[in-house]
Amino acid sequence: MSSDQDLGITESKQYNTGEWYAEVVQKAGLANYGPEGMSGFIVTRPRGYALWESIQANLDGKFKSTGVQNAYFPMLIPESYLEREKDVVEGFDPEVAWVTHGGHNELEERLAVRPTSESIIAPYMAQWVRSHRDLPLRVNQWCSVVRWEATDTKPFFRTKEFLWQEGHTAHASHDEAWDETMLRLDQYASLYEDLLAVPVLKGQKPDHDKFPGAHTTTTVEALMPDGKSVQAGTSHHLGTSFAEAFDITYADEDENRQPAHTTSWGLSWRALGALIMTHSDDQGLVLPPTVAPEQVVIVPIWQEDTKEEVLAYAEDVAEDLADADIRVELDDRDERNPGFKFNEWELKGVPVRLEIGPNEVADGEVTVVHRPDGESTVESRDGIAETVREQFDAVYAKLYAAAETNLDENVREADSREEILGTLGRHGGYVKTPWCGDEACEEPIKEPLSAEIVLCPFDEDETVGDDDHCSICGDQATQTAYFAKNY
Amino acid sequence: MSSDQDLGITESKQYNTGEWYAEVVQKAGLANYGPEGMSGFIVTRPRGYALWESIQANLDGKFKSTGVQNAYFPMLIPESYLEREKDVVEGFDPEVAWVTHGGHNELEERLAVRPTSESIIAPYMAQWVRSHRDLPLRVNQWCSVVRWEATDTKPFFRTKEFLWQEGHTAHASHDEAWDETMLRLDQYASLYEDLLAVPVLKGQKPDHDKFPGAHTTTTVEALMPDGKSVQAGTSHHLGTSFAEAFDITYADEDENRQPAHTTSWGLSWRALGALIMTHSDDQGLVLPPTVAPEQVVIVPIWQEDTKEEVLAYAEDVAEDLADADIRVELDDRDERNPGFKFNEWELKGVPVRLEIGPNEVADGEVTVVHRPDGESTVESRDGIAETVREQFDAVYAKLYAAAETNLDENVREADSREEILGTLGRHGGYVKTPWCGDEACEEPIKEPLSAEIVLCPFDEDETVGDDDHCSICGDQATQTAYFAKNY
Repeated sequence: MSSDQDLGITESKQYNTGEWYAEVVQKAGLANYGPEGMSGFIVTRPRGYALWESIQANLDGKFKSTGVQNAYFPMLIPESYLEREKDVVEGFDPEVAWVTHGGHNELEERLAVRPTSESIIAPYMAQWVRSHRDLPLRVNQWCSVVRWEATDTKPFFRTKEFLWQEGHTAHASHDEAWDETMLRLDQYASLYEDLLAVPVLKGQKPDHDKFPGAHTTTTVEALMPDGKSVQAGTSHHLGTSFAEAFDITYADEDENRQPAHTTSWGLSWRALGALIMTHSDDQGLVLPPTVAPEQVVIVPIWQEDTKEEVLAYAEDVAEDLADADIRVELDDRDERNPGFKFNEWELKGVPVRLEIGPNEVADGEVTVVHRPDGESTVESRDGIAETVREQFDAVYAKLYAAAETNLDENVREADSREEILGTLGRHGGYVKTPWCGDEACEEPIKEPLSAEIVLCPFDEDETVGDDDHCSICGDQATQTAYFAKNY
Repeated sequence: MSSDQDLGITESKQYNTGEWYAEVVQKAGLANYGPEGMSGFIVTRPRGYALWESIQANLDGKFKSTGVQNAYFPMLIPESYLEREKDVVEGFDPEVAWVTHGGHNELEERLAVRPTSESIIAPYMAQWVRSHRDLPLRVNQWCSVVRWEATDTKPFFRTKEFLWQEGHTAHASHDEAWDETMLRLDQYASLYEDLLAVPVLKGQKPDHDKFPGAHTTTTVEALMPDGKSVQAGTSHHLGTSFAEAFDITYADEDENRQPAHTTSWGLSWRALGALIMTHSDDQGLVLPPTVAPEQVVIVPIWQEDTKEEVLAYAEDVAEDLADADIRVELDDRDERNPGFKFNEWELKGVPVRLEIGPNEVADGEVTVVHRPDGESTVESRDGIAETVREQFDAVYAKLYAAAETNLDENVREADSREEILGTLGRHGGYVKTPWCGDEACEEPIKEPLSAEIVLCPFDEDETVGDDDHCSICGDQATQTAYFAKNY
């Protein structure tokens, strides 16, 4: 599908991260930009969509095993419904795509393509919840949403339309809603750490950056190699504000009507962006074996006189791996040489390569190469499926360790405006600092550097004492703030 | 979630099919109507969505094992793209929802919410296909589409927004595209017959009712109990018309550019409508065990003095079934009596009920009841998982046989306009008749009865001979036409 000269990555991850990222996404066949006149939209190609399917399968399994059911709500929402939400929650004024005509007729009321679905789901939750026996109520939908923000397109990170899941739940008490909020946040963290090999920080957003109307917004944040933080998934405790606005009430055991306590939580294909950005390199895409569409590629290396035996041996190995449910590709193309194949599969991010030539055949062995670092070992042909699985674990551990080192080395402390600005400017990453909780004290950092408070850790006791003072204003500190530039 | 008086079905399937269907859909918790001002939209509740997930899993597996990869294209399509399709294919003028504003700004070009995606997928296929080695190219997407048709809403059958999959492929030759078209049609037929217990007829649409621009439109049709046909899935051989319009060409082995031969094929949640309508009855929903969210419900029947032993026994049975990966629900609610539970689970369509009382406990047995016909047998407790699986097969066979009988008994022959009209008017179902192929000869049936030619069988040799004449005009017949009223 590409001519030869299209194959290589030409940009540098270290020096030109944005262009490098865009090149990896396109050349590894993950996505294309949308058509002319559709800036902000992308086309997700099969290799990219397969990664999203891995994320979906993993999260969907987690959700279903913890009481969540999927549902589907209309993609269009009447303006009056959004307005109703606006009344509840100051500051809610989403930039949306407006449908004004159906067929040849102008609509009486214009309809928003959903930017998120609280305002259309809440009225139905109000119908479905009658008694305490109907609680907890948990629904989730996998869908696409549109937010008409005029920004530079960055596939998966920043697009006008994106794929996500949005979960919406109702509970009998504040504490149960809090448990739900944290359960989903933990599931998001596990998705990143156990499937995508991306370590994350968990915490809550400062009050001025909560989801409008929420009691608490919690977040998982991942640090990208360019020193910027990605808001990688959010879980909101909505308190009773949505329940009161949309009349989600239940009869308790004494038949008294009570407002429900609701939550919502969402994770988008931005997770794909974080995955690609974290692990990939100047040769192209790097993927953990957990999500790679092809986990292992076999490249046979033959001369004319050895072709038959090498191919037969390689096919046999491929069959063993396939029988063990390993996603294996045997690249037996005649028209390409091994070097070309190495490059192509490296570009596409296949985590493990097996090289099989006459020597391997003669010795009953296989040469195993790790994509992330090129580490190469010779392994016995016997028990190859088990060996390859061990290599998968080793590759996963390498990727995770590298990302974890990047995170660990890039959380720094500072206790003055100058030090915060200097540290962020020099290193990026997170700067943790005592903070009074006032939005005004974010401004002196945000204004010059576009860095903001991306999270506050949950355990304030551990981090803020009576002697701590806000690094900006000097008042008593109430929280620890993590400043970072972000996507 | 419902008060007691909401539980029963009050309408009659036989005498009031439309109202009965709407009642089953709502009371079995499958869907609600959309909000005020959103006529034509529905909310798919978890019990309904779970059925769609069964269909998705089944079809997606079939697709992936036959070379299809999933992808995702923008939900909005520029008007000029649709116009380009209009130029190609006369008669293409879909009623769509138009996005005219993004945020606070009017767009330069309005965007259609996709009614189907040929016009946005084809230009990308043109980019991705370069050489014969890139063929066949097969992509599919699961998504929602919007068609702004002003009709009475009938959940799953007729809604402005619906969920579906749309597959799009490109091939090197006409014959390969034809094989693809038939492969997908066969997979649709298998979905209906092997998963949903709904027999279907396969055939092609008359030329005047093809997908605009298609070489051939093939269809699977299912006969509903009210005598109307449902177009249950279509697979189009598009010839080279889309390839020529959108420049999907490839270099053949001699480096000559050739237009690709393309197909598209789609199946929507209308399959859910056919499933519900076919099997359900005046007690509520009936489902085959293949797709039922709960395949078996256990209702323990106790008095105060037997409660403990009955419940323990029932729990033990439930555990055995769950261990065998059977989807089982133990209804041990204290506040409901067994009769209430029977009714509720019948309404919800659980295919098999196990009744366990003191007698069953004493005798080491279980009473098994089939949802479709109430047939009841007493079975040994030993080997209960195996027994229940056999009952599933028996229930499936019953459902399929009943639907097949309905189909077999309702294909009738006729050879004059009067006979066609009389037969359709009296019995509904299909009337097969020799036809000259001219659309004008459909009109005398369509005008008075709203019945049309829903399919022509593939094997003309078997059905039309030199002596056959069109039942309407008397000219030489070229096809057999199946007339029916339809959804």
